[in-house]
Formats: sequence, structure tokens, C-alpha cells
Amino acid sequence: MDARATGMSLPEPSLGVIEGGVHRSSLRIYVEDTDAGGVVYHARYLHYFERSRTQLLASLGFGLHSLMSRPDESRRIFVVRRADVRYLAPARLDDVLVAETRVARLGSASIDFDQRLLRDGREIATGMLYVGCIDSSGRPQALPPEMKTALQQTING
Amino acid sequence: MDARATGMSLPEPSLGVIEGGVHRSSLRIYVEDTDAGGVVYHARYLHYFERSRTQLLASLGFGLHSLMSRPDESRRIFVVRRADVRYLAPARLDDVLVAETRVARLGSASIDFDQRLLRDGREIATGMLYVGCIDSSGRPQALPPEMKTALQQTING
Amino acid sequence: MDARATGMSLPEPSLGVIEGGVHRSSLRIYVEDTDAGGVVYHARYLHYFERSRTQLLASLGFGLHSLMSRPDESRRIFVVRRADVRYLAPARLDDVLVAETRVARLGSASIDFDQRLLRDGREIATGMLYVGCIDSSGRPQALPPEMKTALQQTING
Amino acid sequence: MDARATGMSLPEPSLGVIEGGVHRSSLRIYVEDTDAGGVVYHARYLHYFERSRTQLLASLGFGLHSLMSRPDESRRIFVVRRADVRYLAPARLDDVLVAETRVARLGSASIDFDQRLLRDGREIATGMLYVGCIDSSGRPQALPPEMKTALQQTING
Repeated sequence: MDARATGMSLPEPSLGVIEGGVHRSSLRIYVEDTDAGGVVYHARYLHYFERSRTQLLASLGFGLHSLMSRPDESRRIFVVRRADVRYLAPARLDDVLVAETRVARLGSASIDFDQRLLRDGREIATGMLYVGCIDSSGRPQALPPEMKTALQQTING
Repeated sequence: MDARATGMSLPEPSLGVIEGGVHRSSLRIYVEDTDAGGVVYHARYLHYFERSRTQLLASLGFGLHSLMSRPDESRRIFVVRRADVRYLAPARLDDVLVAETRVARLGSASIDFDQRLLRDGREIATGMLYVGCIDSSGRPQALPPEMKTALQQTING
Repeated sequence: MDARATGMSLPEPSLGVIEGGVHRSSLRIYVEDTDAGGVVYHARYLHYFERSRTQLLASLGFGLHSLMSRPDESRRIFVVRRADVRYLAPARLDDVLVAETRVARLGSASIDFDQRLLRDGREIATGMLYVGCIDSSGRPQALPPEMKTALQQTING
Repeated sequence: MDARATGMSLPEPSLGVIEGGVHRSSLRIYVEDTDAGGVVYHARYLHYFERSRTQLLASLGFGLHSLMSRPDESRRIFVVRRADVRYLAPARLDDVLVAETRVARLGSASIDFDQRLLRDGREIATGMLYVGCIDSSGRPQALPPEMKTALQQTING
């Protein structure tokens, strides 16, 4: 059988695991992630943190695309209000990192995420990411109730 | 046991599979990949193609970082000489794509890759990527013999 | 007078110049553009080519945002159908490059761009970029007539 | 005269201006900067902040590439230790923003930058960027004395 015909059998990319209130997933560093200093470019960590938050929500059944594609009134978009990132050690090409995300605070229209990246158990970077929920005109809106419930259960472990 | 202490049990990110001369892996589209048109930004496909080539080489035991970190004379760097990409259908947020990479031609100091991205078996983009092997002063150098042998065996399936 | 109060006097970023049918502008290479090989990451050239095409259209009075924000039926989006890029020499941190863009062919619903990047008059990369004009449902649509006229005049120099 | 022959006459990209202790420059938002939310992707602001810091140093005569390319012992690399960014309003395709950078504190081996982005005088984002100076083995090193003197004079306006 032709390999090109077996496409459906390849496993989907992992969404990570949730255990004890912490979402964890792993990622590999590619050339696209690095800069001329030979290490990962500092802005890239915000990408990894976002992938991890997206995986956490997708694990709970919430796809960003479907939330953004709802009819006008019920459309919900998540925006970063503040990102406070500490860079503790450089990550390099071919490294495998673990991303950990925990919900630190659940507001009515906001979620604060406590996030970090590790290599072999050692912290590479930590970040507090303050995210708000808005509608298509940019006004703050309550989190979808079913999402809030699911996140609350995650926090409680 | 604390989830933060169980880091070692999380599976590493998949390097994909090689079958019938074709490397295949899957990837997920995140917000970082999209643009204001609501679809994946066209330059991003070059990133996915590179991840796939890197995975193919890593599957065969060749890490880019270790090749680039060898002592001066034996250092080897892979550079794209030409990229010819055709965009056939848009990819969107939360999509899961399959990347396929095949070695089309193996030169003495170059590798031509035939690559494509699919969603549900339908082609999203195809690319011919012409890659050269150089040393630290930018001069073309023969592929490492053990890499050439491994790639030849892959082609032969 | 406080510097923060004088914001309005700072010149806008240049949109480049059009002469003899060629749009030309200059750009600087920052750390964000480079990779662990110490040179500009190959996908970044597609960004520079796009900035240059955008500047060419903006110079002629066509903003991408206003075309994309028109009411549904008349919305127009430009999508890359094919990108064929040749990498001739590496660009490095702090380099200043010149981007040149010429309309190679003007179709009814497409524009082919002949583009290149130079450093001190020497070619760094060349690209043929095949761009299509579509509406919000992805169907090819004729170029806005006033844009076609303006581009035709540019070609004729 | 052929436009392609007049390459040298095109002005270099602006490095911005320093007035009253504040570096200011302008930048344009391209499709590459945006995401599916229709606004600038949050990680991109770190790119703009870095361009602005690089321009400030280059205005004072210090090129990052030459500092990174010095012989081993005297090589100096600047790394972000912490980035604290507040997102106040979205930026969109075709926007022209002003980046402002001020040295908030000058340490022996570190520089704290107070940065912001404005559109029509209104704040889009602010950031405190804490940058360290290291050598090729990652150890903190005193700022080059001539750079420290130049930055001190900039602070004093």
C-alpha cells in the first residue's frame, strides 16, 4: 500500500495532558525559532505560551476558531492584556522543552495564566499572561459559562 | 505526586514516520500562524516544510545542532538555495495538517526535497525545496557520507 | 518642549520610490530576521517581498486594509498563488538591503511580480511572486479597475 | 538612466531621532504582523521594541553585529532578562505606529528600557524591557564603557 494513501493513520499532534490542575505538553526547537545569537529569539516564548493555552482550551473542548467564527453577537475573541516574561536560561536548536500552564485566576471576563518552559526539569522561562475575553467590537464579555465551568474544574484538579 | 514532578513521563514531540520513502508528520495551526486574511500567512509554509525536513533528518539520527556545532573544519550547515511553493487552498486556525517529504534527488553537496501539506487528504500546498550543504565559510561541501547513505536507503524505501 | 509631545513631526516610514517601472525601497536586518546559522532565515525573504508589494500598491493609493474592509460583496483580498525564490547570497544582522519590485504580468484577476533583494548592488535573492485577487468566499475576482490602470501606467514607466 | 543603476541614491531606512532623552521612530504594520483576529499578533510588539532599541544603539554608533562578531574574549551579546508588556489598544493592518524608547536605568552589566508604541499620539502598548550584557559563554559582562558613556549622555538629554 502506498504511504500517501495511509494519511489517516498518522496520529494527530498531541494536545498535551492535564494533571493536578497543570496542563503539560512538549515542543521541539527548530531553526525558525532561533536567532543570530544561536539561541531561541525572546519573542518566540510568547508563541509557545500561546500554543500551550490553546491546547489547554482545546483539551477541554473549546476551539479558538469556532469561538471566533460564531455569528456576530456571540463571537468571542481572547486577547492578551499583559505579558510578563522572565528569561532564565537560553533554549537552543534541537532542544525539547516542556510547557506548563496553570490557571492562576479566573475572572468574569478574564483568565490569568501562570506558565513556564522547562528543559530536563530546569526552568528556561516563566510567564504571567493576562488574557481578556472580548466581542467583535472589542468590548469585554463574560467568559462562555461552559468554558468557565470547565476551567474551574481544571483548577480544582 | 505533584504533576510538576512527573515531567519526564510526557512523550517527546513526534518526529513523524517514514514509510515507502515518504516522511509524514502532523501539525496544528495556531494563532501565530495566521494573518488578517483569516488564513495561514504564506511564508509560514516554509517553516512547516523545514520542520518536516528537520524531522526526517532527525529520524535518521542527524541533529542540525550537532552538525552546526562540530569543530570548525567539519561543521556543516544546510541552506535553502531555491524554494518553489504552490498555494492550492487556504489553511485556517485549528486545522490539523499532514506534512509529507520525499527526497527527490540526492546530489554530492545538495538534496532536493519534494514536499506537500494536506488537510483530510487534500493538498493545501506543494513545494520543491533545493537545499545545499556548506561549511562555515559558505563553501559547498559533500554531504556527510553516513547521511547520504541513510537518505539513499530512505529513497529506496 | 517635551519630546513626547512632538510625535507628529516624525516622518512616516518611507513607501519607497517608483522609477522606470521599478519600485525600490530599503530595509534593515534586525535580530528578529536571523537564525542560528547567523544569517537571515529563508522564509523572511517572503516577508520583505510582501512589504515591497504592499508599498508599491500603497504608493499608488491602494491600502490593503481598506480593500479587505469593504462591505462583503466588494471586499478584495490578495493571495499568493505561487512563490519561486532563489537564494543567492546570505544577508546578515545590521545589513541594509534594497528591495526591487516590478510588475511582470498583469492578468484580469492576477498580478505577477518580479522581485529582488540587493546589498550594495549585489543580488541576495530573487523571487517570482504570483498573486491572485479573490473575494471573501475565495472566488477569483477582477482586479479593481482603478488599480489595474495605475499598475499599467507603472509598467509603462 | 535605468532605475536599477541608481540603487545608491535611495535613502537608507531611518534610525529614528533622539530628543530629550527619548528615541523615536515610526513603523508600518504589514500583513506579516497580523493574525486571524484582524489585529497585530501580541508577540510582534517585542519585535518592534527590539528594532527600536537596536536603532537607539545604532544611532549612537553601536552595531549589534560588530559587537557579536568581535574576537572571542571581547564578544558582547545583549539578552532580554525580562519583558513586561501591557497591551492597551489593538494595532491593525496599514497602521503607522511611533515607537518610543527611553533608558530607565543603566546598570553595570544591564540596561532597563522604558518603551511604548503610539498611534496618533494614543498609547497602543507599553513595555519594560530588562536587558543584560553577556559574553560568548553567557557570563554577565560590563557594558562597553564607550556605550555606557553614550547612553548616559542620552539620558541626560
